[in-house]
Amino acid sequence: MHSNTFEPDTDRFLADLHALRRIGAFRTGVHRPTYTPEDMESREWLMARMAKAGLVPEMDGIGNVLGRHPGPGPKLLAGSHIESQNEAGWLDGALGVVSALVLARAGLPVDVIAFADEEGHYGSFLGSRSFTGLLDEAEIDAQANRYHGKPLRDALREAGLAGRPRMVMEAGRYKGFVEMHIEQGTTLEAAGEQVGVVTGIVAIWQYRITIEGQQDHAGGTTMAERRDAGLAAVRLLAWLDAEFPKHCADRTVWTCGRIALSPGAASIIPGRAEVLFQFRDISVDVLERLDAVLRRGVAESNRRERCVATLEVMGQSAPAPCDAGWQDALAAAAEALAPGKWRRLPSGAGHDAQYMARVMPSAMLFVPSIGGISHHWSEDTKAEDLAMGMRVLAEGARRFLAG
Amino acid sequence: MHSNTFEPDTDRFLADLHALRRIGAFRTGVHRPTYTPEDMESREWLMARMAKAGLVPEMDGIGNVLGRHPGPGPKLLAGSHIESQNEAGWLDGALGVVSALVLARAGLPVDVIAFADEEGHYGSFLGSRSFTGLLDEAEIDAQANRYHGKPLRDALREAGLAGRPRMVMEAGRYKGFVEMHIEQGTTLEAAGEQVGVVTGIVAIWQYRITIEGQQDHAGGTTMAERRDAGLAAVRLLAWLDAEFPKHCADRTVWTCGRIALSPGAASIIPGRAEVLFQFRDISVDVLERLDAVLRRGVAESNRRERCVATLEVMGQSAPAPCDAGWQDALAAAAEALAPGKWRRLPSGAGHDAQYMARVMPSAMLFVPSIGGISHHWSEDTKAEDLAMGMRVLAEGARRFLAG
Repeated sequence: MHSNTFEPDTDRFLADLHALRRIGAFRTGVHRPTYTPEDMESREWLMARMAKAGLVPEMDGIGNVLGRHPGPGPKLLAGSHIESQNEAGWLDGALGVVSALVLARAGLPVDVIAFADEEGHYGSFLGSRSFTGLLDEAEIDAQANRYHGKPLRDALREAGLAGRPRMVMEAGRYKGFVEMHIEQGTTLEAAGEQVGVVTGIVAIWQYRITIEGQQDHAGGTTMAERRDAGLAAVRLLAWLDAEFPKHCADRTVWTCGRIALSPGAASIIPGRAEVLFQFRDISVDVLERLDAVLRRGVAESNRRERCVATLEVMGQSAPAPCDAGWQDALAAAAEALAPGKWRRLPSGAGHDAQYMARVMPSAMLFVPSIGGISHHWSEDTKAEDLAMGMRVLAEGARRFLAG
Repeated sequence: MHSNTFEPDTDRFLADLHALRRIGAFRTGVHRPTYTPEDMESREWLMARMAKAGLVPEMDGIGNVLGRHPGPGPKLLAGSHIESQNEAGWLDGALGVVSALVLARAGLPVDVIAFADEEGHYGSFLGSRSFTGLLDEAEIDAQANRYHGKPLRDALREAGLAGRPRMVMEAGRYKGFVEMHIEQGTTLEAAGEQVGVVTGIVAIWQYRITIEGQQDHAGGTTMAERRDAGLAAVRLLAWLDAEFPKHCADRTVWTCGRIALSPGAASIIPGRAEVLFQFRDISVDVLERLDAVLRRGVAESNRRERCVATLEVMGQSAPAPCDAGWQDALAAAAEALAPGKWRRLPSGAGHDAQYMARVMPSAMLFVPSIGGISHHWSEDTKAEDLAMGMRVLAEGARRFLAG
């Protein structure tokens, strides 16, 4: 064993992960939607584990669970979320919370946090936004479950959280935040690597393209007469498919997740098409370049086609770069413990860390996802990779605190 | 007035159309889905009108209404359907039935028919297929309403039709069949013409293309790793959009009416795409050529993409050419009554006439559709065009019978 590394109890780490996995178990994954009995049971389980580790646990009015380290001096904040997507994986979220607990248990000055509803059953990052003062009561009044429509207020009441105050981050308490997570991609796995030091969380720029044409009978309307909104959508998407590679960066991704043609019948020329299109990158320059390409495509469509295409911005988040010092501390730990088996890479998915990055130096550490699968009950990571991630996280945190 | 033309009562023709329009009125159109009380009321109305015109009316076990001419000698069969699409136009179907009544009323040896469910609420051309012996009891047992799922047997019972025998065409009775209809396109309107002599009813070749990829998180999966079924669908459709014009005929049409991406969420790479694609032409050679182009496109997709595209034939109907002698008789009538204001053109939509064309010389006559609109309550045709169509139909029928 390398003399100056700090060794966390990885056996107990894995045992805790498996204990948490039994709460709301679904096949080999878990089903713990936010504020359900299973989710609340996992929060109670966490609070008990926190107390055993010497932390002072508290659950607040939005469901955030914070275990405060009782000692003096600057702290780290570490954690993630504990609820899951529907019928989803056992590691997403849980890994960040349980690894934080291991850091505290090993004697590092760490507050452990489980943010509520990162998975968006009721809102957008409710827990991390509440903790950083970005969630107001009016938004809580307005939100409802995206799958079955239950009002957020009802869910909070049923979970026993109504009326509790909400915790807000104590100014000056933290030196930084760290969140361990599965990669949710195959970059590490494909390269045979065990650890990823996250450079930042990409921004998502998301759009709705609506194309208005003329609904007509597919038999009675000649090709020359048509104003086919579906065909205009296909041509625009094919154009974007050809143009985006000329303007993107190495890790840029772009996705059309939905094409809805109205009325959607075999023998009716679509009078309307609705397309969801998004792209993600860590660089605002790249995002702005691609935004311009998209706008040029829509403008070209409106010049060429007999349909009217309209571009609507659904969201343009800011990228959240990880702290350079944190990255270096984690990278040094990775090189010490897993030489040649780690890399720096961005996170393509959103995480609570992106809100923490607004208020303190923040970092993320990735471990490989088997087959890149996430948000599905078959999500998994090799035990040896989980253990290596835990060791790098602990050693990196020690170096960051010492730095 | 040209001395050798036959003049039907066009005022009474228009009055009857407006009387029928009041049954199931919806805005300026009608809502008379097959076997609803409104549809059955229209059939009863028709039988009363037939009796007044000297015909012997009968309604059978599938809802077909036939008014038999009592005189001797060869007859014409004329008609269409009387039910409507949901919240649809007042002329589609009704025009063919009421114009047939006018022919009989004017003394021509005409049987008038209203076929059931041409609009396909419960099946495919139930009435004309029943009348020509192509509908068996097992199919009636199996069918249900395409919108709300009511079994066809239940609908027939509620309409009072259960247990009635079904009429089958009397062999040797008819010299030919004719159906007047709105164009459902803008060819006549755009040319300022009043009448279209239909050359035939195009065949529809219809396909489902299913593309299987890999559903993945849109943030965590690099472009190189993706198996995006939606993107493969867009590329294939864009290829077809470029290739079909090189192989089609003058009046060929092709349509993609539906693109369904699964799961259809903004941040999920589609794991599956389902595309409905069809083309129509009057020539089997052209249809077979386009079928080959489509198959080449799917094969190319399977060579280029990391997704698997499958082509499934949903239907390949046969084109139904109109009888040459019938066309000439109608063309001569059109040239006599509306010189320079008529043309020959194919029907892009399906009609009962396509089944009649299998068993006797058949013809169709089109009048303009305002704005090409059909299957919508705003469907309409100018009164002067309706009247001219009626006059050409009558004169053409007289010439055909005399020929």
